[in-house]
Amino acid sequence: MTFYQKLVHHNQKISRLEHLEAICSWDQAAMMPEGGNSARSEALAELAVIKHELSIAPYLGEWFEQAATEELAPDEIINLREMKRSWQQANVVPADLVEKKSLACSRCEHAWRTQRDKNDWQRFCQNLKEVVELTRQEAQIRAEATGLSRYDALLDLYEPGMTTVELDELFSEVKGWLPGLIKQIMERQSQDVIMQPVGPFPVDQQQALSHTLMDRLGFDFNHGRLDKSIHPFCGGVPTDVRITTRYDEADFTSALMGVIHETGHARYEQGLPETWAGQPAGKARSMGIHESQSLFFEMQLSRSELFIDILAPLAADFFHRIDDPALSPENLTLLNTRVKPGLIRVDADEATYPAHVILRYEIERDLVEGKIEVEDIPELWDKKMSEYLGISTRGNFSDGCMQDIHWPIGAFGYFPSYTLGAIYAAQFMAAIKKEMNVDSLIRERNLQPIFNWLDRHVWKRASTVSTDQLLIDATGERLNAQYFKQHLEQRYLK
Amino acid sequence: MTFYQKLVHHNQKISRLEHLEAICSWDQAAMMPEGGNSARSEALAELAVIKHELSIAPYLGEWFEQAATEELAPDEIINLREMKRSWQQANVVPADLVEKKSLACSRCEHAWRTQRDKNDWQRFCQNLKEVVELTRQEAQIRAEATGLSRYDALLDLYEPGMTTVELDELFSEVKGWLPGLIKQIMERQSQDVIMQPVGPFPVDQQQALSHTLMDRLGFDFNHGRLDKSIHPFCGGVPTDVRITTRYDEADFTSALMGVIHETGHARYEQGLPETWAGQPAGKARSMGIHESQSLFFEMQLSRSELFIDILAPLAADFFHRIDDPALSPENLTLLNTRVKPGLIRVDADEATYPAHVILRYEIERDLVEGKIEVEDIPELWDKKMSEYLGISTRGNFSDGCMQDIHWPIGAFGYFPSYTLGAIYAAQFMAAIKKEMNVDSLIRERNLQPIFNWLDRHVWKRASTVSTDQLLIDATGERLNAQYFKQHLEQRYLK
Repeated sequence: MTFYQKLVHHNQKISRLEHLEAICSWDQAAMMPEGGNSARSEALAELAVIKHELSIAPYLGEWFEQAATEELAPDEIINLREMKRSWQQANVVPADLVEKKSLACSRCEHAWRTQRDKNDWQRFCQNLKEVVELTRQEAQIRAEATGLSRYDALLDLYEPGMTTVELDELFSEVKGWLPGLIKQIMERQSQDVIMQPVGPFPVDQQQALSHTLMDRLGFDFNHGRLDKSIHPFCGGVPTDVRITTRYDEADFTSALMGVIHETGHARYEQGLPETWAGQPAGKARSMGIHESQSLFFEMQLSRSELFIDILAPLAADFFHRIDDPALSPENLTLLNTRVKPGLIRVDADEATYPAHVILRYEIERDLVEGKIEVEDIPELWDKKMSEYLGISTRGNFSDGCMQDIHWPIGAFGYFPSYTLGAIYAAQFMAAIKKEMNVDSLIRERNLQPIFNWLDRHVWKRASTVSTDQLLIDATGERLNAQYFKQHLEQRYLK
Repeated sequence: MTFYQKLVHHNQKISRLEHLEAICSWDQAAMMPEGGNSARSEALAELAVIKHELSIAPYLGEWFEQAATEELAPDEIINLREMKRSWQQANVVPADLVEKKSLACSRCEHAWRTQRDKNDWQRFCQNLKEVVELTRQEAQIRAEATGLSRYDALLDLYEPGMTTVELDELFSEVKGWLPGLIKQIMERQSQDVIMQPVGPFPVDQQQALSHTLMDRLGFDFNHGRLDKSIHPFCGGVPTDVRITTRYDEADFTSALMGVIHETGHARYEQGLPETWAGQPAGKARSMGIHESQSLFFEMQLSRSELFIDILAPLAADFFHRIDDPALSPENLTLLNTRVKPGLIRVDADEATYPAHVILRYEIERDLVEGKIEVEDIPELWDKKMSEYLGISTRGNFSDGCMQDIHWPIGAFGYFPSYTLGAIYAAQFMAAIKKEMNVDSLIRERNLQPIFNWLDRHVWKRASTVSTDQLLIDATGERLNAQYFKQHLEQRYLK
């Protein structure tokens, strides 16, 4: 067995442990009763340690050295590069810090689930401080190993190659035109008369509609499931993707659009190349690219007027409301393209969403870099919400800085991916539209050519190329926020 | 850290891996879509290897030697004894024999699934011979290591301390009165007029009824769930017990009694002492004691006339059949205490069940000891079925010696646990009845004192005492089949 092959086996083993971790984590969020949490967290922490031990096994250094001298096929060289990247990332953080952070995050996240309902910032703050402190320790170690800044070193875990310098530039460009654009859109929409569909929309009917729509969007139910959880997510493994949503009987559109969003994530996972299963080169490229797929499905595709022409009669049918004018395509289009600054990121429309992300990015960047403390968050949050979206969140922690799961689970550096995803998605759609008539395809209910394009240019490429290269190969150019701006103008100001 | 403490940590680690294994196995049976199976099986196999490597880690020998010289508290000595027992059991069989047997069993079980449908004894016999041969080798090695006989050494894996000598005596006593008793019961029941409830009984109503009943039986839904699977089982971990059932819309009693049975298993697991969590001393004592709890809940408690007085109106209510005479307490009592010899063990009533077990015990005992060969099984099976239950199985292998999965998977020594469980359960109930008026408690819907007794005398004792001691402490005497006989006479011949 060559050293490269040894590394392949080694990564396969790690991938199998990740499989167990993914399923048990999904279970923890979607199935597990409250009382099971403590033992589950311990079991997952133990697994994290074993995974970590494997990923920093002392013999790996020599294996990588030896493998570098072996004659490898081009795709093996790519896989070796990705193996080495994750090896280096895993190696720098000591095992006891990994375990401590995992336990602190489990504790923080679990308590957050009830603290958020109680608007209990004081108690949450105590747990979060512990998470932030351990995150800073981790960031410091990663920064020293990579020569990046502390925050960039975390960013690199989710969006390899992306830096604060590039993000600051990108986001300041977006901040330059976004508030004005939002204002224009709101003026434009101020005369719209929208009927709010009146519930109840029974959960079982919402579920059935969700399943049908997932089916139309190509979700493979032989390799995945849809379930419920407090915070919707896409988990599991490529052969068994677990997406979740939450249902509100008063409003079916939020769950529905959530399901479509997660279906985009799911199709990326289900579409990853089988030949690379269990290998680093076969994983999703980055969180931003992942988000680009969910936003492509949700924003680029499903909130388009043409797609809502398909969706509306389906909804009317499932809810037995054929004659309800609130479920007409026209009204649902207005409803699903409504731009209105709000408190909650996950409920935000695509125009105001980047403001939520930029706000979080700026806070977490400074938090990790030690320029601010956890106690400073509520005030900063309120200040930036007022500035970017004209909304006060004073005293409302639940719908302010306690609304997201990311910080409780210690995922600092993740938020920028959402808006990067929106920008990538718009750029992908612009490229697709150069190759085919997307509008006609939607009208013909023939989405397959679009999915094929994504499969070829994104899903099947997995991590075999850098994000930059993937974008260039797929769209002919590097990341360019102009396509996102054009998309918003086209949809909202045409 | 003392060597004993090192061993505690080591066992905790193994227990956490067992946690992940339990949840992912439950998921595989209850949640996973078909297409996820191959990757899941690989992930679980990888985990099994890691667990096995841990349980035979070379340093453990020295740790046990050193720990034996340390000053330990009495309960630590008990835990050390149980640690050592499982360590020796895991270590004594050479890896190549473990692998050979595992492969032979996989092959045999896989082929059995189709051979059983085809009644193909000839081909099944060839595979089973290989399994038996390797089982004999394993038994020989275990016998040499423990000083037990070959069959006893296997029995010890499931029912520590139990021996062929004791079983022979016990079962020959049962055989002495059982056939006559069955005959008497059948004569007694021959005049009964029973109405078979007519379905459909919708699955969601069965589920709701199951949940209500589990609640009455003290199942802690904060530490467990009920779901569906093809084969009902009790899985998960003590802090999060996962029981499953399958629903037949034509017959609600089978799922209901199945749920009650699994609830008994679940309460044992949920009731295990938290202080011993993750340690060998904190595990369920044996398969027989486990089965005693499920049979206590199902047979001693729930099939009693008084309990059915509670159950019947509940069922009538959930199925909206208040006036259905088939759901009257009288009819449901007749239905749930019907005794009728049949071919299939898992469908047997509590009176004929021991005959199925004794038959299998006698055959597998002699098979492992080398007194008979695989070719002798069908004739012996037919002879014993005729003798014990008056039924011929000649030529019907599918519903005869090919009906159970135990032998194909090499689980020789397991069968006696079922009937030991029934006998333990009856003995426990007899002891409880000396302390309290069980009939009044059931009438008053106050089962708590009964559960408290089980909690104190069985659940909380876990593996801190031998089965013998547990029985003596709980009931004042050693295993005594007379209580089981009295229970049957009381219920069926009173």
